[in-house]
Amino acid sequence: MDASKEPALLFDLDGTLVDSVYQHVIAWRTALEDEGLDLSTWRIHRRVGMSNGLLVNALARELGREFSAEQVAALQAGHARVFRELAPHVRPLPGAVELLRELSQRGVLWAIATSGTRATAGPNLAKLEVPASVPVVTRDEVPFAKPDPDLFLAAADRLGVAITNSVVVGDSIWDVLAARRAGALGVGLLSGGYSRQELEVAGAFRVYHDPAALQLHLDELGIRR
Amino acid sequence: MDASKEPALLFDLDGTLVDSVYQHVIAWRTALEDEGLDLSTWRIHRRVGMSNGLLVNALARELGREFSAEQVAALQAGHARVFRELAPHVRPLPGAVELLRELSQRGVLWAIATSGTRATAGPNLAKLEVPASVPVVTRDEVPFAKPDPDLFLAAADRLGVAITNSVVVGDSIWDVLAARRAGALGVGLLSGGYSRQELEVAGAFRVYHDPAALQLHLDELGIRR
Repeated sequence: MDASKEPALLFDLDGTLVDSVYQHVIAWRTALEDEGLDLSTWRIHRRVGMSNGLLVNALARELGREFSAEQVAALQAGHARVFRELAPHVRPLPGAVELLRELSQRGVLWAIATSGTRATAGPNLAKLEVPASVPVVTRDEVPFAKPDPDLFLAAADRLGVAITNSVVVGDSIWDVLAARRAGALGVGLLSGGYSRQELEVAGAFRVYHDPAALQLHLDELGIRR
Repeated sequence: MDASKEPALLFDLDGTLVDSVYQHVIAWRTALEDEGLDLSTWRIHRRVGMSNGLLVNALARELGREFSAEQVAALQAGHARVFRELAPHVRPLPGAVELLRELSQRGVLWAIATSGTRATAGPNLAKLEVPASVPVVTRDEVPFAKPDPDLFLAAADRLGVAITNSVVVGDSIWDVLAARRAGALGVGLLSGGYSRQELEVAGAFRVYHDPAALQLHLDELGIRR
């Protein structure tokens, strides 16, 4: 491990590279409504990005009740079904394709680590033109998703880089918290609808608007042109 | 004007009393998409609550272009159409009906002031059980909507109270900014998806989760039980 080396970048997917957070919010809200459950939309928004299991637990707690195993399964299936319907409207965020292409061209190591499943991530990876050689770690491959550090630790491992010389890029406080637990620097993007201050308070090293703004400021992360 | 008197409350509607912000976001995003325009969803979210005219101008600026009069009309019509479709899913926020009922029972003066039109506000006023005697000021009735102060000034006028002895309650920074311009205290609610810090930085006197939390803390605003 050598902290003077150019860092590797470990990207979250939803809200960080693709504009999908609000579709996830609507999908969870519809799934809850279909189960007769009334939870404020903003509370769902602030949970998106965590592991789906933790998210469902958190929603139950905010409703002041417990879900049966059948309800948990129905909620997860409902979310997946509505999100699939909305998925054609999901687009790469401004600058995402260009940023990833520049990193590849310049030989900067990067990977994607998402709390989502391989099935929901697949179409978005295609829209982002992610090369097959780039490591993509999904929920299916680790015991715990964010804010646990496992996804980012696995991504650094797949790249063969030290996590302490990696920069995690994410839109939610769950990404930034996972980055700190993993021992990486966390960088926040506003493109998932969190505020700058929420990300900074969670420990973000820097906060940018979106991938396009990050691309303009790569030198602030120690990636030189 | 007597600052020692119990204040009147001037409420925003969308995101403050009803859980409708995310439906407005989706409606604007769909309207933009239908016009072939690609704007990140979070940027739309952070504009909801301003006057629709200002919002469309702001979206044009963020896209780095100007809209023709036909495009502006198409966007506004598209937003109204999609929002009408989603409106049946809009519910009162937790505690909203109970808070308004308690204020009426205790003789506290209150009104509603919304950047929305009378047509879109109507169904939500019914869900909130707003008595016909309560002043409701909509976009149709003032020259400028938020963050201009006109809506709140008109609401205080209709109640016959001094704006300087009124408390504006809203979920967006546009409410809080309009409150300051009007000379009222602004109170923020998190139920529209803004963060506590954004509302505080905009000048909120206090910030609560939602109407239910506000009801529990009315004494902090000088409304005694």
